[in-house]
Amino acid sequence: MIAPDNYPSKALKDAVEAIGSLPGVGSRSALRLALHILKQSPDKIHAFAAAVDNLAEGVHYCRDCMMLSDGDRCAICADSRRDHDTICVVESVRDVMSIEATGQYHGVYHVLGGIISPINGVGPSDLTIRQLVERVSEKTEVILALSGDVEGETTSFYIYRQIESRGCKVTTLARGLGFGDELEYADSLTLGRSILNRQTFKP
Amino acid sequence: MIAPDNYPSKALKDAVEAIGSLPGVGSRSALRLALHILKQSPDKIHAFAAAVDNLAEGVHYCRDCMMLSDGDRCAICADSRRDHDTICVVESVRDVMSIEATGQYHGVYHVLGGIISPINGVGPSDLTIRQLVERVSEKTEVILALSGDVEGETTSFYIYRQIESRGCKVTTLARGLGFGDELEYADSLTLGRSILNRQTFKP
Repeated sequence: MIAPDNYPSKALKDAVEAIGSLPGVGSRSALRLALHILKQSPDKIHAFAAAVDNLAEGVHYCRDCMMLSDGDRCAICADSRRDHDTICVVESVRDVMSIEATGQYHGVYHVLGGIISPINGVGPSDLTIRQLVERVSEKTEVILALSGDVEGETTSFYIYRQIESRGCKVTTLARGLGFGDELEYADSLTLGRSILNRQTFKP
Repeated sequence: MIAPDNYPSKALKDAVEAIGSLPGVGSRSALRLALHILKQSPDKIHAFAAAVDNLAEGVHYCRDCMMLSDGDRCAICADSRRDHDTICVVESVRDVMSIEATGQYHGVYHVLGGIISPINGVGPSDLTIRQLVERVSEKTEVILALSGDVEGETTSFYIYRQIESRGCKVTTLARGLGFGDELEYADSLTLGRSILNRQTFKP
């Protein structure tokens, strides 16, 4: 282990501490990364730092779907070719990017900014559920695309209770065996659900 | 996978690309880290970026041992209590920090800045071997503390040939079974060497 007093340079120590504050980056990795950055040309280091620095002011949130955006409205909400009557509710920006990458969805999104998790101190008021409820009245379908764990199910149920009276269709992602999954290695909950929700075979 | 076009914000994309350029950080991790940074307060983001930015100009190299330093000379070379007649040759700053952390060494260092590795295009002239040879004449002992692989051994041998005529003692780190290691799991090279170099038992 490397004691904090052993850093030969204050600038290096500061950088290692900053990088080591990132999730999943230990002090050893932080040192490795800092030394890697240090080996770059000053121009590259400045560009790197500027790219990170720009996160402080260069990123806005879409006023409609709460997604990250360059301006007041995100590219998806501003796109008139998208189906603005279908709204897909996701936990985070990463989920939007994952769904967009499938190319299978043409509606708009709503980013909750988290998931209801009492153990982490996240309640409904910490999320953008209020804004979602306001948006829902004009929509025909709300897809609850949250993760399949307890917190995701809880959040889905909470949102469902908030919007069920608004008259729009509420759906959720299909759950079952993944494509290419082997039965032997599937967990029994998933396998059980995929038997219960079995679908007509289309050859 | 997340396609580059799917980034909802240019600032985010720039930051992900910068962070993803670090060794061992894939595009998925880079996105996770960028989103983590984004969640911080603007002050924290600026401080983070400044700490990285400062690596460009805030770090110097010690004129004696080539280690990273805040000034012209590192704290170890400037310390008169250290034994300036013994010089420990290491590959990188990280090795200095590891050896310092043991508290067992009281001499000074020489940082090569790499290791001779033809496969990576690193030759003797890319390292600080010339500066080492210049320093060696005043020293009584040179410890070659390089790694035990082929490249480390090659570099040790090369340095030894350069300095053997200078009249100082040349030593290398003891190799053998680590403390707490089990014989069963030791590689046979290490085990073989630790039998050949067996030491008098001191109860």
